[in-house]
Amino acid sequence: MSKIVTLGEIMLRLSPEGNYRFVQTDSFRIIPGGGEANVAVSLANYGHETFFVSKLPTHEIGQIAVNALRRYGVNTEHIARGGDRVGLYYAETGASMRPSKVIYDRANSAIAEAEPGDFDFDAVMEGADWFHWSGITPALSDKAAELTRLACEAAKRHHVTVSVDLNFRKKLWTSEKAISVMRPLMQYVDVCIGNEEDAQLCLGFKPDADVEGGKTDAEGYYGIFKGMMQEFGFKYVVSTLRESFSATNNGWKALIYDGKTFYQSKHYDINPIIDRVGGGDSFSGGLIHGMLTYKDQAKALEFAVAASALKHTIPGDFNLVSAEEVMSLAEGNANGRVQR
Amino acid sequence: MSKIVTLGEIMLRLSPEGNYRFVQTDSFRIIPGGGEANVAVSLANYGHETFFVSKLPTHEIGQIAVNALRRYGVNTEHIARGGDRVGLYYAETGASMRPSKVIYDRANSAIAEAEPGDFDFDAVMEGADWFHWSGITPALSDKAAELTRLACEAAKRHHVTVSVDLNFRKKLWTSEKAISVMRPLMQYVDVCIGNEEDAQLCLGFKPDADVEGGKTDAEGYYGIFKGMMQEFGFKYVVSTLRESFSATNNGWKALIYDGKTFYQSKHYDINPIIDRVGGGDSFSGGLIHGMLTYKDQAKALEFAVAASALKHTIPGDFNLVSAEEVMSLAEGNANGRVQR
Amino acid sequence: MSKIVTLGEIMLRLSPEGNYRFVQTDSFRIIPGGGEANVAVSLANYGHETFFVSKLPTHEIGQIAVNALRRYGVNTEHIARGGDRVGLYYAETGASMRPSKVIYDRANSAIAEAEPGDFDFDAVMEGADWFHWSGITPALSDKAAELTRLACEAAKRHHVTVSVDLNFRKKLWTSEKAISVMRPLMQYVDVCIGNEEDAQLCLGFKPDADVEGGKTDAEGYYGIFKGMMQEFGFKYVVSTLRESFSATNNGWKALIYDGKTFYQSKHYDINPIIDRVGGGDSFSGGLIHGMLTYKDQAKALEFAVAASALKHTIPGDFNLVSAEEVMSLAEGNANGRVQR
Amino acid sequence: MSKIVTLGEIMLRLSPEGNYRFVQTDSFRIIPGGGEANVAVSLANYGHETFFVSKLPTHEIGQIAVNALRRYGVNTEHIARGGDRVGLYYAETGASMRPSKVIYDRANSAIAEAEPGDFDFDAVMEGADWFHWSGITPALSDKAAELTRLACEAAKRHHVTVSVDLNFRKKLWTSEKAISVMRPLMQYVDVCIGNEEDAQLCLGFKPDADVEGGKTDAEGYYGIFKGMMQEFGFKYVVSTLRESFSATNNGWKALIYDGKTFYQSKHYDINPIIDRVGGGDSFSGGLIHGMLTYKDQAKALEFAVAASALKHTIPGDFNLVSAEEVMSLAEGNANGRVQR
Amino acid sequence: MSKIVTLGEIMLRLSPEGNYRFVQTDSFRIIPGGGEANVAVSLANYGHETFFVSKLPTHEIGQIAVNALRRYGVNTEHIARGGDRVGLYYAETGASMRPSKVIYDRANSAIAEAEPGDFDFDAVMEGADWFHWSGITPALSDKAAELTRLACEAAKRHHVTVSVDLNFRKKLWTSEKAISVMRPLMQYVDVCIGNEEDAQLCLGFKPDADVEGGKTDAEGYYGIFKGMMQEFGFKYVVSTLRESFSATNNGWKALIYDGKTFYQSKHYDINPIIDRVGGGDSFSGGLIHGMLTYKDQAKALEFAVAASALKHTIPGDFNLVSAEEVMSLAEGNANGRVQR
Amino acid sequence: MSKIVTLGEIMLRLSPEGNYRFVQTDSFRIIPGGGEANVAVSLANYGHETFFVSKLPTHEIGQIAVNALRRYGVNTEHIARGGDRVGLYYAETGASMRPSKVIYDRANSAIAEAEPGDFDFDAVMEGADWFHWSGITPALSDKAAELTRLACEAAKRHHVTVSVDLNFRKKLWTSEKAISVMRPLMQYVDVCIGNEEDAQLCLGFKPDADVEGGKTDAEGYYGIFKGMMQEFGFKYVVSTLRESFSATNNGWKALIYDGKTFYQSKHYDINPIIDRVGGGDSFSGGLIHGMLTYKDQAKALEFAVAASALKHTIPGDFNLVSAEEVMSLAEGNANGRVQR
Repeated sequence: MSKIVTLGEIMLRLSPEGNYRFVQTDSFRIIPGGGEANVAVSLANYGHETFFVSKLPTHEIGQIAVNALRRYGVNTEHIARGGDRVGLYYAETGASMRPSKVIYDRANSAIAEAEPGDFDFDAVMEGADWFHWSGITPALSDKAAELTRLACEAAKRHHVTVSVDLNFRKKLWTSEKAISVMRPLMQYVDVCIGNEEDAQLCLGFKPDADVEGGKTDAEGYYGIFKGMMQEFGFKYVVSTLRESFSATNNGWKALIYDGKTFYQSKHYDINPIIDRVGGGDSFSGGLIHGMLTYKDQAKALEFAVAASALKHTIPGDFNLVSAEEVMSLAEGNANGRVQR
Repeated sequence: MSKIVTLGEIMLRLSPEGNYRFVQTDSFRIIPGGGEANVAVSLANYGHETFFVSKLPTHEIGQIAVNALRRYGVNTEHIARGGDRVGLYYAETGASMRPSKVIYDRANSAIAEAEPGDFDFDAVMEGADWFHWSGITPALSDKAAELTRLACEAAKRHHVTVSVDLNFRKKLWTSEKAISVMRPLMQYVDVCIGNEEDAQLCLGFKPDADVEGGKTDAEGYYGIFKGMMQEFGFKYVVSTLRESFSATNNGWKALIYDGKTFYQSKHYDINPIIDRVGGGDSFSGGLIHGMLTYKDQAKALEFAVAASALKHTIPGDFNLVSAEEVMSLAEGNANGRVQR
Repeated sequence: MSKIVTLGEIMLRLSPEGNYRFVQTDSFRIIPGGGEANVAVSLANYGHETFFVSKLPTHEIGQIAVNALRRYGVNTEHIARGGDRVGLYYAETGASMRPSKVIYDRANSAIAEAEPGDFDFDAVMEGADWFHWSGITPALSDKAAELTRLACEAAKRHHVTVSVDLNFRKKLWTSEKAISVMRPLMQYVDVCIGNEEDAQLCLGFKPDADVEGGKTDAEGYYGIFKGMMQEFGFKYVVSTLRESFSATNNGWKALIYDGKTFYQSKHYDINPIIDRVGGGDSFSGGLIHGMLTYKDQAKALEFAVAASALKHTIPGDFNLVSAEEVMSLAEGNANGRVQR
Repeated sequence: MSKIVTLGEIMLRLSPEGNYRFVQTDSFRIIPGGGEANVAVSLANYGHETFFVSKLPTHEIGQIAVNALRRYGVNTEHIARGGDRVGLYYAETGASMRPSKVIYDRANSAIAEAEPGDFDFDAVMEGADWFHWSGITPALSDKAAELTRLACEAAKRHHVTVSVDLNFRKKLWTSEKAISVMRPLMQYVDVCIGNEEDAQLCLGFKPDADVEGGKTDAEGYYGIFKGMMQEFGFKYVVSTLRESFSATNNGWKALIYDGKTFYQSKHYDINPIIDRVGGGDSFSGGLIHGMLTYKDQAKALEFAVAASALKHTIPGDFNLVSAEEVMSLAEGNANGRVQR
Repeated sequence: MSKIVTLGEIMLRLSPEGNYRFVQTDSFRIIPGGGEANVAVSLANYGHETFFVSKLPTHEIGQIAVNALRRYGVNTEHIARGGDRVGLYYAETGASMRPSKVIYDRANSAIAEAEPGDFDFDAVMEGADWFHWSGITPALSDKAAELTRLACEAAKRHHVTVSVDLNFRKKLWTSEKAISVMRPLMQYVDVCIGNEEDAQLCLGFKPDADVEGGKTDAEGYYGIFKGMMQEFGFKYVVSTLRESFSATNNGWKALIYDGKTFYQSKHYDINPIIDRVGGGDSFSGGLIHGMLTYKDQAKALEFAVAASALKHTIPGDFNLVSAEEVMSLAEGNANGRVQR
Repeated sequence: MSKIVTLGEIMLRLSPEGNYRFVQTDSFRIIPGGGEANVAVSLANYGHETFFVSKLPTHEIGQIAVNALRRYGVNTEHIARGGDRVGLYYAETGASMRPSKVIYDRANSAIAEAEPGDFDFDAVMEGADWFHWSGITPALSDKAAELTRLACEAAKRHHVTVSVDLNFRKKLWTSEKAISVMRPLMQYVDVCIGNEEDAQLCLGFKPDADVEGGKTDAEGYYGIFKGMMQEFGFKYVVSTLRESFSATNNGWKALIYDGKTFYQSKHYDINPIIDRVGGGDSFSGGLIHGMLTYKDQAKALEFAVAASALKHTIPGDFNLVSAEEVMSLAEGNANGRVQR
């Protein structure tokens, strides 16, 4: 059991049931989630002492988010309370050739308006083994970018391993702005997770493969990974490779590079996808657990890919699986027979 | 059938089912509503050509609000489209001694940030018989207060009767600010609806009765009504009188004054209350229909009180009753026998 | 355990959840029920061998109705299969001063178009102890009236006690038509259940009390009961007395007359009413069980009134209570303490 | 924005949730729909001024249908009100090798018993650009067939383009009867939509390909299309080609012929199908929009096929998509990536 | 119509909706089922007079199970009432590579603690044509094993055909214990259903094929079937062959051997699976009906395989299909076209 | 903020929705709860560091119970994991004269079979301020009684205040057995909560008032309280007084005695009751908070009574209210006005 810290926003996802469209529904399921919160839940499920750092209003809607994290074993004592809004996003689930659709309503949330004084990052990082954040956190606001920097600095002061999921979000900032904020933060990062598109938009790298069209070329990543490692001094560069056949059917695998060896994971054909959202976060959570558990980057990556393949079969953002379930799949038990 | 215009905000109310508390629920029922939108739906149900004027985003969440109005026959062609947010509020339903609770998340909604150029109020008021707004609309923002003034001016240019529901909301503005905005707008108003507390907080009148504690003194209103009429030149002053015994049981009646006669309606004992929200708006809707239909202020008031008593038995903000159903209750059929 | 036969229609009630109005709902709960079917379920619950005689289409919607009866132990072997439609009615549940509302869509149902050849009434009545029908059955169609006559004749051939619940339904026939059909059928009836309004509309008796307004005068029934007994030779005349205070709160008691003594039951204050529909049928079911079980008309009536008071607290048409539960209430345990 | 008129029946579809069978459910989802109503909703979604002409009862069940149309922007002012019944159909949704099942209960609905005097077709067609109907409308009753003829005549008087979806329904009429009614109506038709089976059963054409077995032969349509055009003088003949692999997986494409060129659309593999009902209607709606928007029959057809492919992924009869969403798919964006 | 008896346990399956995991749900759907109860429901659906023999508590939870059987036409008069518990199992439904998961809570159920004196097996078997049980029944407890033996003996006394579904359950007993109980019971069995794994674990046969991995080798069964027939004198040996590709997609076929000919059924690709539980029981039910209806073992097997393929598309344990629906699929109608 | 420990069982309550009876429902709402768990949740809500001590299986059903406690802030680190069963109880909610009904299925639960070695009570009690248990815990099994004794002893070693809620449950043990176990445990108790019936059945005191019938006589408690204090040396004796008018309407107040003064709280009329279960536990939770917060026994009692009155308006066992909400009611704000 390690101590792990993540920093970011937890939102409420408001979604129609099943495959109903927004304009058909008269109720929303409430699905708490957010990049780093999702990672925290994954790691709590694997048995780690996990802290999610954020800010949430004192009112009951803020409490819904706190309770969702506590329910799954995440320590919430470093969540500052105050501000007005819990960030929201509306999401409807597509099928076949109809894509899922997300509408954000997260501006002015409590964490986007939080102040450095809301947190004591030295207390947070004291004794921690790992600190994870994503490119979404600094994108929330200039204040949040400042918080990210302060957290990274504290992590380094306390000799904490730092991972980032680049995760570019075009609704939150431009690539120009992202690059200006993210590049300086890379000095604190040990493990960098991100596909070629993220690398380009957040860090200024030019991808060679055509990801948008669903085609992926694992070998196209060699050069990018080497270049990223050279420039930023990462210990590991990692990326998932998603093939989007339809809203219901995706291919899924991942790559890792430790500066010496380049390892490509098993490939999973996920059909049907129950819920895609949080797929990347479950990969990050699996990777952190894998790296903390195994010495072998290949084993760590296989754990991460199996974990995130399972996530696609679970409703909601959180990857509610145990390490045993992930290992069983990573070891090849993919036939779906009833477990009695 | 008259042409009626209302101006304001329509929000989505997000509510747990039944009597569940916020922290217990994993879904929200979506209940579109808002003071003036509720009045518009009431009037469309009574057979009038009713226009709701507002601004809503072009995305599907904005469309949910537009569709809710269209569904019940409100004309939405004067709703401007644009902006980012649909205003929200979270509401849980109390019972017995536990009060219902509302948490607002309506800042920066599309209508709060709308511009005069979004609307052609002369086109809107052309041929209209009645224009209704409430104190919530100018409280949304300075821009919205400006829109209210422009709408009132256009109404007067087109000889439209104007009614206001004072409806003070302490989460939106202070009494000081309210008085500075609302008093100048009273020159356009023919029919003023508001209880003593609203009159004090929006217009600066001092009430004599203790409403908060559930005690009401109809005669205490005589002086207030006379004073208001004298100062602002209203044609009618009207108020509901609610007795709050519990979250489930209220007494309900109303008063009207035309400058000559003071008429007090029948009293209803509402038990159980199914949904209190929109009770006041259903009264305004009923009053406007009553005044457009009957010459007699007493008949108009009895229609309004019966309409709003029925509203308390209907889930949601909208008062989904026909004029026939209201008249049946106003005429004394309150025994609740099954209508086969 | 006695053998009991009832004849009539079972419909599907389609209802919005809770107190939603028709125009608010996007789903209907399916609630199978119908006067004589409800009586049959009551009696199966009390442990009798109970047969419901009717006709239903062979398709799955017909099967839904058959299965609902089997589920609660009613023998369905004398239900003929064929025809096109299962009768429907839409019902929304009122509250406080808002009445519940019923819209029928039962024309041309299988039983309304059934033929004498669909049934072998001698086989049905063989060995039976009791035959119950209501005024709804002959009102369905001329064919159904003919079936009712044939069933009564067979009952008499087999020395079966016959009860009727007069139950006038103005949507199905006029009072004139009802009187022409019902009066001749009274010769077969031993136990006649019906309030003064039914007696007037179905049999031509003039009531003295004002039932519609919720006022009831038990003594006003003396004359009516005596007159009915004199003219038709009933062994018992029985009536419930409902006081409708609101859709949520009713008073409830009943009267019985055996030609010698007039007995008035305990009075129940039912608040809240969960579902009023089937209240009268549960009374008939309780009365038949009471008469088959006790020699004392007072005990029989108290059982019937307690049974039907309980029905008002149960969703759906069927009175899903055991004889033990009814007896417990009839004996005075009305405090609602949790039964652990 | 064009003015478009459709004439037909809107029913309530009553369906168990998900894949439950009729005999398992205790509730029905209420899904308003009907061939021409579905076309009207499609066209309102694409921004046209769309009128649905029909007759519905004045009661609340009729109002449910009216409100469903208003909600999605269809103009209902030409819907006559009266009659007793809203047509119903029960539908359960199959999966894999289990087919979906439909049980109709639509006899004697208000529109089937409507009279010519219920409508002023000259007022309806005044200024219209397009009139669409399907073979279901005249099949409802002789009166409805007469209404169809009157509407077609009025359309022609007002120079309105007329399209028909042949849509043979064996539960409503025989092929003989269909041919006797439909052939004379073809003189008014500009655009004829229908597969080979419909052409045979409604108009007397003999198909060459085996559609029932899921095999389709696009070239087999050449002769039929030419023959139909020759005999009836259509401007366009159009057909969809469905390959039924299972209840969950269909192939989907379409053909069009303008008398000169024969164009075959892209092929879609729809897996999973969320709701098949209304698939054909969404094609008609897409085709009408396509023809009103593009000069090119190929572009119109691709819009129609993409629109109807999307419909298969949306619960309910109505195709709740925007023209932008359809165009995105028609242009090749079928990978189902989340739209943020 | 034959008289058929089955003996075993009916439990309540408690399941989250859809694909939710146990830790995500706040409600359970109640799904009554159990090996032999499922067979009984299948056979009642096919029109047979079917008796389920078991023991259930007198309280309402026991009644839920009784009512579920009655609803679908199973005769429950030989169910003894008493004991404390209804057996439960919790089940969540997997998807793609995530397996479904079952947690049992069935110890000390009423049937596991039933006594021989609770049943009169001679009365039960009087006039019966077929008696079916599975290896689960004797595995429940030593008492239940004794009941199984008594039932088999009574069946033989009354010349009833006996079938068994071996169905080894490792949570209920060890292979050693199973063999010691099951082997002696084989003397009563005419038709033995079981795959190679069951044959090994219940009867001590060694399978040759690798079933766990999803690979099946039909020919590998020849030897096993011959050996089983030789040793136990079965009239028929039968097995299904499931290929588990994922939790959502299985291959499905079956084999039968009458001592002379070995027949292998059509193969079905089931995608998506809606509910796998009860798949084997629906096969047994189909086989019994097939054998009672057809002289040809091939026809009987094709009926059984088609019946159980359909079961996989139906939520719940019970196979709610008619013989007509099964025959339609067995005859090749697998395209899933809507049945109107 | 104090450290508080409670010891007992947490079960899953399985309940039909609303007022449905067991035999009508096809789903159960899962409501975690149990006497001491409910107290723990109350105290966590009031801001205390609260530990619930119990044993739960490692499987997901055990995890559901753990997660429910974590969600509401209860520390679960002293919950031992192991054993087979989570205790269950089925509960249906009555209305009016129909009582709620509970069916237990809790035998052999993990905590009932827990061993002393599963817990380190000295570690548990280290630094604690208060230890609470109820008469249900030792009633579970002899082992659980032993655990209760060990916990009490450890509490005393660590100078922890001990409270007990006598809570006699006749389904778990006889009065004789209860007295033999409970009397010796009273030596550890500082605060004794229990009505006269509990005092009689658990400790051998004879009550004077008739509680079962809903009649309560506060003065009748004087003697009992004095006697109990004399014999057992309690510091406080406390009892609630419930008047059961119906399943929907109860009167509610409480009494406390500190050996000197006897204080009787305000009386609340609770109508409607939303959920009665957990009412007594919420009183204990409120009392402990009150005593830890106020020096005045009257203030503590008023807090406890207001807290438990609120509980009756909240679905589920847990009293999800804040100290602020309770104080607002205790101070007299009972009018149920909407809190905006």
